Amino acid sequence: MAIPGVSEIRVRVNYSETDQMGVVYHARYLVWLDIARTDHLRLSGMSYSELEASGFRLAVSEVAIRYRQPARYDDPIRVRCWVRDLASRRVVFGYAVEHDDDGRLLATAFTSLLALDRSMSPTRLPEPVRQGLRVVPDPVKLHFTSEGSRSPNHAG
Amino acid sequence: MAIPGVSEIRVRVNYSETDQMGVVYHARYLVWLDIARTDHLRLSGMSYSELEASGFRLAVSEVAIRYRQPARYDDPIRVRCWVRDLASRRVVFGYAVEHDDDGRLLATAFTSLLALDRSMSPTRLPEPVRQGLRVVPDPVKLHFTSEGSRSPNHAG
Amino acid sequence: MAIPGVSEIRVRVNYSETDQMGVVYHARYLVWLDIARTDHLRLSGMSYSELEASGFRLAVSEVAIRYRQPARYDDPIRVRCWVRDLASRRVVFGYAVEHDDDGRLLATAFTSLLALDRSMSPTRLPEPVRQGLRVVPDPVKLHFTSEGSRSPNHAG
Amino acid sequence: MAIPGVSEIRVRVNYSETDQMGVVYHARYLVWLDIARTDHLRLSGMSYSELEASGFRLAVSEVAIRYRQPARYDDPIRVRCWVRDLASRRVVFGYAVEHDDDGRLLATAFTSLLALDRSMSPTRLPEPVRQGLRVVPDPVKLHFTSEGSRSPNHAG
Repeated sequence: MAIPGVSEIRVRVNYSETDQMGVVYHARYLVWLDIARTDHLRLSGMSYSELEASGFRLAVSEVAIRYRQPARYDDPIRVRCWVRDLASRRVVFGYAVEHDDDGRLLATAFTSLLALDRSMSPTRLPEPVRQGLRVVPDPVKLHFTSEGSRSPNHAG
Repeated sequence: MAIPGVSEIRVRVNYSETDQMGVVYHARYLVWLDIARTDHLRLSGMSYSELEASGFRLAVSEVAIRYRQPARYDDPIRVRCWVRDLASRRVVFGYAVEHDDDGRLLATAFTSLLALDRSMSPTRLPEPVRQGLRVVPDPVKLHFTSEGSRSPNHAG
Repeated sequence: MAIPGVSEIRVRVNYSETDQMGVVYHARYLVWLDIARTDHLRLSGMSYSELEASGFRLAVSEVAIRYRQPARYDDPIRVRCWVRDLASRRVVFGYAVEHDDDGRLLATAFTSLLALDRSMSPTRLPEPVRQGLRVVPDPVKLHFTSEGSRSPNHAG
Repeated sequence: MAIPGVSEIRVRVNYSETDQMGVVYHARYLVWLDIARTDHLRLSGMSYSELEASGFRLAVSEVAIRYRQPARYDDPIRVRCWVRDLASRRVVFGYAVEHDDDGRLLATAFTSLLALDRSMSPTRLPEPVRQGLRVVPDPVKLHFTSEGSRSPNHAG
């Protein structure tokens, strides 16, 4: 981790991720975010695979993503990931998706995850998970708008 | 449209959409939202396919989705879609994803779309598109939090 | 079923299924085949969902698909499905993927499925499943070549 | 390439690739095959991205895949890829999908690709592509059956 608490993964855009607009289909970014936070957990000493085997699940309860510039076929992509917030039953990850050659910021995102037990009921995050994770300031501005920037005087 | 300005589509969860948690993988919902807004455009007199053929694109610039209850394999799903906001170059759609048998609210979402021309530069929404779309009040509360509900006093 | 033993489903190509060649990405057809055979089972009196709940799985053990003409965004697609072969632990489905407006044959395929028990070991197909399924002659020629039509005298 | 003419890529199974059977959904393997052959082309001196920019496409015309053992979440996967056959307008790739820790063979496959020009008409493979590719004997047996092993005396 170049910045303490900020992990990095690299992926290369494959053909299945493109759409007929000639760019990466927007839903595919969510898979990259998943790979990034799994790796972040691994670097923090936790295997999500083992967590799940021991009866815990981390279920995505909220995603917000802002697309700034398109990613294209064969582009090398870097996803930086960090913990934005940590509560007893919830962890919020932040993400910066960047072009790995020139560093252009392609997208920013956060995902909120809820700890669930075997019966899919909310539960406390296991103590080793809480201990292993470290909340850090956002290395990039995320600039999300509450409620989708609905205009105050929209013509409803 | 049962409520004026609110369209509905129905999909059935297929096996490819599930994950090993036994529920629908969170990224798949974005495809349902895409199908819903395409249908909303069609009902409003526009074919996205023809729009694109005429040189326009509607590119997703922001997505926020809140998952409330899991969708499962073979569930019948209803997605309601409406226009939340409309500006010269941008349209914001709102969505309610519901179980089609019992009406349970599974997820709420909005997506912001930007009009682009052939060269992928922002442009004004074509006038017929603007005329055809009608902003309506949210039929359900979306309850998104700005910036991912980062705690004000988080332990950074 | 217009032809006895041959079921039909209809899907419309959505944007997520296209790639930058402007056609449907080849792997997406496998999801349509899955939806088609699930529906075929349902019409034959079996719910795959209930089968799985009762401890059986039908795992795909082989797929062969031949692409003849591309499917495109927003195309209405019809998939016809039938049982080609039935053995004690195995069922082979055949498929014809067609454009639903003009009937053009877009792809032909077969998938071989193996019955597994809860521990993922091969088992006999449940008797009601065997009774409900009926092998029929192929309504279209599939024309697959064994071993990928490797030339007999290729320059190895 | 450990064996001349046989390339290797490595991927790790991510959560989006699993299904509720707890294994990798069968259609996802086709994406790995795509990544493998793109890399094979790259190692043979061709960038598919540049090929496409110069007006050529390689369209998948046939896929056959045999699943032998399931791949699971977080498994390290190795895909070996080679050219099985080469004709004026067509190239057939073979694949072995293996668990990268213990070498177990998970799946074997071949895909036939057809060269298309800008108007999506069949054309000759560009000479540099033909020169760069080298047909090699299968390093593993593929064991596909023509026409889906339809029983000769099936009860049609």
